[in-house]
Amino acid sequence: MISEKMKPLVNNNSAIRAMFEEGAQMKAVYGADQVYDFSLGNPNVPAPKEVKEAIYDILENEESTYVHGYMSNAGFPSTRKAIAESLNRRFGTSFGPDNIIMTVGAASGLNVALKTLLNPGDEVVTFAPYFVEYGSYVGNYDGKLVVVPADTKTFQPNLEAFSEKLSEKTRAVIINTPHNPTGVIYSEETLKKLAAILEEQQKKNGSPIFLLSDEPYRELAYDGAVVPYVTKYYNNTIVGYSYSKSLSLPGERIGYLVIPDELEDSETVITAATIATRVSGAVNAPSLMQLVIERCVDAQCDVGYYERNRNALYNGLKELGFECIKPQGAFYLWVKSPVEDEKAFVAKGKEYHILMVPGSSFACPGYVRLAYCVSYETILNSMPAFKALAEEYKL
Amino acid sequence: MISEKMKPLVNNNSAIRAMFEEGAQMKAVYGADQVYDFSLGNPNVPAPKEVKEAIYDILENEESTYVHGYMSNAGFPSTRKAIAESLNRRFGTSFGPDNIIMTVGAASGLNVALKTLLNPGDEVVTFAPYFVEYGSYVGNYDGKLVVVPADTKTFQPNLEAFSEKLSEKTRAVIINTPHNPTGVIYSEETLKKLAAILEEQQKKNGSPIFLLSDEPYRELAYDGAVVPYVTKYYNNTIVGYSYSKSLSLPGERIGYLVIPDELEDSETVITAATIATRVSGAVNAPSLMQLVIERCVDAQCDVGYYERNRNALYNGLKELGFECIKPQGAFYLWVKSPVEDEKAFVAKGKEYHILMVPGSSFACPGYVRLAYCVSYETILNSMPAFKALAEEYKL
Repeated sequence: MISEKMKPLVNNNSAIRAMFEEGAQMKAVYGADQVYDFSLGNPNVPAPKEVKEAIYDILENEESTYVHGYMSNAGFPSTRKAIAESLNRRFGTSFGPDNIIMTVGAASGLNVALKTLLNPGDEVVTFAPYFVEYGSYVGNYDGKLVVVPADTKTFQPNLEAFSEKLSEKTRAVIINTPHNPTGVIYSEETLKKLAAILEEQQKKNGSPIFLLSDEPYRELAYDGAVVPYVTKYYNNTIVGYSYSKSLSLPGERIGYLVIPDELEDSETVITAATIATRVSGAVNAPSLMQLVIERCVDAQCDVGYYERNRNALYNGLKELGFECIKPQGAFYLWVKSPVEDEKAFVAKGKEYHILMVPGSSFACPGYVRLAYCVSYETILNSMPAFKALAEEYKL
Repeated sequence: MISEKMKPLVNNNSAIRAMFEEGAQMKAVYGADQVYDFSLGNPNVPAPKEVKEAIYDILENEESTYVHGYMSNAGFPSTRKAIAESLNRRFGTSFGPDNIIMTVGAASGLNVALKTLLNPGDEVVTFAPYFVEYGSYVGNYDGKLVVVPADTKTFQPNLEAFSEKLSEKTRAVIINTPHNPTGVIYSEETLKKLAAILEEQQKKNGSPIFLLSDEPYRELAYDGAVVPYVTKYYNNTIVGYSYSKSLSLPGERIGYLVIPDELEDSETVITAATIATRVSGAVNAPSLMQLVIERCVDAQCDVGYYERNRNALYNGLKELGFECIKPQGAFYLWVKSPVEDEKAFVAKGKEYHILMVPGSSFACPGYVRLAYCVSYETILNSMPAFKALAEEYKL
């Protein structure tokens, strides 16, 4: 009954669903506090108080037809201005409201960018491990996702392998920093090298290659780590942002694209992306939340909570003998499986009521992802289970 | 720089933009109250008080991580249950929560349905005049929009011409009732005949044809007119709904799809539509608004305001000698142009500061659309201008 394109997605979905249901069943049987669920990237830190205050302020002081009404498909000019100015203050950029297009979260922003740019058969390069939905997004526009294998020493992008994957068909590259699932932040050095490689390939191709920087975790950076602003290193950059994590609003679907003036033919790309937002069916990003963002551009959820979680989980697992990448940002810990087949490790974890996601789901087998956007108590309480798991593998 | 598919949309956009800018300029020159802008379908009636009350109730009594968090891609089960029960109460249907998928407005719902169903080259039939974005939505999935010419006597769908447009490639049919731009409500008799034609064609094709009923204006019906519930007449119906008009929330992008159990292979279609919601980048409909809808399923904006507007505009123009279709619902008046080239009529209207949309924009030249979701005063104040326009054409 369904389209050919949807069939593999539906088939694949039953595996995800089975995993989810197994977790739910475990919680039903053993009690939710006896199951250590590190499988979901759903923020557990509440939105900052500014969000609620902003909603009350808006509902008390603005007209309903304005608050809940249509605006330009790109979003309220006042919201876009507030975002541009916040970025300029924080990153020394020089964006205006026209460089910002409000989107239904970062996922929708990436789709808008890809719809704007891709012709069938165009190649989009990304780095393993990667968020598996990138494949669906690229497939939506009949592009082909080309995956660069991981540099398993640093989990910075593997730039040597990257050069080899570029071709005359390369139309875009997707990066994600701070990174899901490894927690790595792409360094300035990495971005400079990556930009140089892309510049060279652009010249060879005689046509632009767009760098799509997916940045929903930008504000979740620890130990004072700097997350370089990618548009400064490469002109043909489009940034996709979401307030899902920084303001703990994942369900509200609110984010934006940055399309800088420096991007080739930027005016046409901005117009096309605005139209893509409309014809994709989103029409515009949710209006009340746009007005909330306008008032909360510099607010943040309690990032310290995640940092404490990171420290507890990373240090705890290190001490037990697990090999982990120390997360610089985001809320994921990337752990090397003690056995080659990480799915066996995930299954073994379940025996100790620990839920993890296999690295195969990120095109990087041999590792597992732990999402530590959970309560601090869950992390503390999980430690005996991890200890038993470590003993099982004689770590 | 942009994809081949986006190019015609960008070119076409400049015409729309020119029209919009001309209107803005007129208002700047003559004052907004001296320009009678009937060009936009943006509700001017505020959201009912229940919406604001619901938001306050939710923010005071529910956890932030629940209110603004991720939920199932199909939406909160409690919201879907409330909607299903409201539909069952009002229309005698028997939907459960699983038959409802929350969407980012009706436009996104239609896109989700088309993504779920269409293979490249599949034909989707609709009736002129029609909302021009249907062409973009169908094109998003490489389908082909097939347009049935209007029955200019009744503006009910032209069923004779419809039969001739069906083929072995017909995969779906889009209807819209109450109707933009004519204000017509499809009668029970029309729906029964339409269903019979589709049943016959399905048999001939040996494969289902899906009827997509786009119903954002369902609650805007006047003189006690009944809007028949389409799933009762044809099993393979998918309903697309939006709260843009009934609750005056167009900017919030909140609506739903109904996929009934009676639909062929409904379980797979529901799963696929849920996944299509996710991979299209929407992920889920905005969370706070879902919880608002749960509390406001039976609330309505002041439909009486639109009815008064309809009466004033319809009666006023009739008296002046214009030929109009009396709107049974929605908030549009469909007026026959006094001259064959309705664009000349639209241009002439501008001389009297009246902004209208030419019927060509709905694939039905020779007519114009007036959106009466404006203040009552605008309608009263516009009458002398319409009188002068009528005199110009010696009506």
